[in-house]
Amino acid sequence: MTRETPPAIEARIGDRGYPVHLDSGILASLGERWVAGATGEAVLLVHDANVTAIAMRAEESLAAAGIRVVSAPVPPGESSKSLAELERLARLAATAGLRRRDGVVAVGGGVIGDLAGFLAASYQRGVRLAHVPTTLLAMVDSAIGGKTGVDIPEGKNYVGAIWQPELVLIDTDVLDTLPARELASGFAEVVKYGLLDGPELFELVESWPALPGPRDRLRELILRCVTHKIDVVADDEHDHGRRASLNLGHTVAHGIEAALGYAGVTHGEAVAVGLMPMLRLSEELCGLDPSWRIRTGEVLARHGLPTRLEGVVAVDDVLAAAARDKKSDGRSLNMVLIDAPGSIRLGVDPPPRMLRDAVAEVLA
Amino acid sequence: MTRETPPAIEARIGDRGYPVHLDSGILASLGERWVAGATGEAVLLVHDANVTAIAMRAEESLAAAGIRVVSAPVPPGESSKSLAELERLARLAATAGLRRRDGVVAVGGGVIGDLAGFLAASYQRGVRLAHVPTTLLAMVDSAIGGKTGVDIPEGKNYVGAIWQPELVLIDTDVLDTLPARELASGFAEVVKYGLLDGPELFELVESWPALPGPRDRLRELILRCVTHKIDVVADDEHDHGRRASLNLGHTVAHGIEAALGYAGVTHGEAVAVGLMPMLRLSEELCGLDPSWRIRTGEVLARHGLPTRLEGVVAVDDVLAAAARDKKSDGRSLNMVLIDAPGSIRLGVDPPPRMLRDAVAEVLA
Repeated sequence: MTRETPPAIEARIGDRGYPVHLDSGILASLGERWVAGATGEAVLLVHDANVTAIAMRAEESLAAAGIRVVSAPVPPGESSKSLAELERLARLAATAGLRRRDGVVAVGGGVIGDLAGFLAASYQRGVRLAHVPTTLLAMVDSAIGGKTGVDIPEGKNYVGAIWQPELVLIDTDVLDTLPARELASGFAEVVKYGLLDGPELFELVESWPALPGPRDRLRELILRCVTHKIDVVADDEHDHGRRASLNLGHTVAHGIEAALGYAGVTHGEAVAVGLMPMLRLSEELCGLDPSWRIRTGEVLARHGLPTRLEGVVAVDDVLAAAARDKKSDGRSLNMVLIDAPGSIRLGVDPPPRMLRDAVAEVLA
Repeated sequence: MTRETPPAIEARIGDRGYPVHLDSGILASLGERWVAGATGEAVLLVHDANVTAIAMRAEESLAAAGIRVVSAPVPPGESSKSLAELERLARLAATAGLRRRDGVVAVGGGVIGDLAGFLAASYQRGVRLAHVPTTLLAMVDSAIGGKTGVDIPEGKNYVGAIWQPELVLIDTDVLDTLPARELASGFAEVVKYGLLDGPELFELVESWPALPGPRDRLRELILRCVTHKIDVVADDEHDHGRRASLNLGHTVAHGIEAALGYAGVTHGEAVAVGLMPMLRLSEELCGLDPSWRIRTGEVLARHGLPTRLEGVVAVDDVLAAAARDKKSDGRSLNMVLIDAPGSIRLGVDPPPRMLRDAVAEVLA
């Protein structure tokens, strides 16, 4: 049985739009979509060295469309998000003769998208970019919205750019080979979208079977998350207002990750833990019905995500790291809370003691 | 005798505008202009270690306006335009607690403006920027228009961004302490503006006395160049068309600089040499009256600028380096010629033999 490919989602961000193609089995269409209407001849294919098989299929598709592909495998892990790695890739691109009308294709998860995206933003002051996310987290979150960057020892994503891609191509089939822990990590962001978007999406998320889940409904689930994010980013590309809502649970998550030296927990696991104190504060400060925290904890746990981290990290270390977070303005933590799923409060600065108690609850 | 400060020039580029303040003796107003209408508390003051006295006056002005200033001297010279130096400055900014509402102030010539500008473009994905150019070249050219970047061994400005400042402050008094060779180097760009803008500016340039020249007329000369550049960049911020005109003489200049390993000649000296073959080609291909080449050579020579470089670099090396220039698209050199001063031809690909002869004439 064949069916028609659904039309692309149009992301209209800033002064231009670009398509987000989302379906199962569409990786082979990458080449024809990249060359449509464009004049470039070559791409640097930046990919996670762990997804070589997927990268090779992307390369074949681009080559079949007449593109000269320079393959650039990148070591897996956060440590590749460095200016040294950016320089290595820029030199590779220059040596291969890439010019301003050429581009970068990112095949991988969040690390690859952030690194390759910043390369595209800065190589010769900006070239074309395509995101081909291979993790659930990248599909629903990091490949959408144009945030790119690398880390410095003082902070994650401290050097980067907002750079929108020319296209995003999400082939849900690639999730079949994603390790279970990575799938679950991405699902933490999906749960976050349920809380941000409203009861209808939350209930779809809550009823989700074992990951990755049925292909036909998977497209719908990812589509709902992507649509939510595009809507927010279109409103606030440069992150001066509403875009901060996407940070729900992330201030504490970043604090946990930093306090642990970015080892031992995945980003999604930290987000799962980080959501819980925000829901408690939402109850205490915004009147959120306590049932939502219980239901959120249950759905996270059912997919193998932690809702607490006992005794591995000190609450003061987490709070100190959270205070250094980019989103903080030095006086307020600018946290995101909810009155109810879909009803968001931005820029909240909870009383320190209340915050400490809420964070301590999930760390002790 | 006091006189009123002339109103700032409004640079309207992209979707916003910013002021270019240009006058003698206005360095002390930097602080009040930086804080006008803004909320930041701190700046990283990136400055050439050779202009410490000027940087200290900038720092005093900012401090008097209530800004916390973190001073970041940078070693003089092109080698500071590196990703390693960018990382050092980003870490310094992070360690000093600079946040998204804070900013970067660049005090120096083209190297400092390019490096500090890219830092501002990329630190926490973009913060406020002020340019305080201290060389004639930076005043008339590099501080205007938003091009920023660093070098990699494969090419100059290969990693960077287009990032417009919040303000540009040009105090012509700082030219009093600029070495004569640096003044002349900047004047090569002034001569270029004369050729691009038209006979009226060319004649003002042609009649210019010894550098830096009388203060009252100096403001007018720089204003004419700045206005020309703002006009071009406002039309074509992202360098897809008319902005290429500013490259007059620069393809051969970059070829000379690259072939010499960026040593032995200043950028302006290379531009002076690079203008001459473009004028010869303009005669041969566009009917430019030969008197303009003679007059251009005379004004360059009168200010101590070379119009030829005998025997220090091979024509084939220069042409090979020019072919790798970012402006080249791999098939065409995309050169800029003129029919007459003020009448510009873009995207010219001269016959190779004709180009070689024209370049050979100034190198043998």
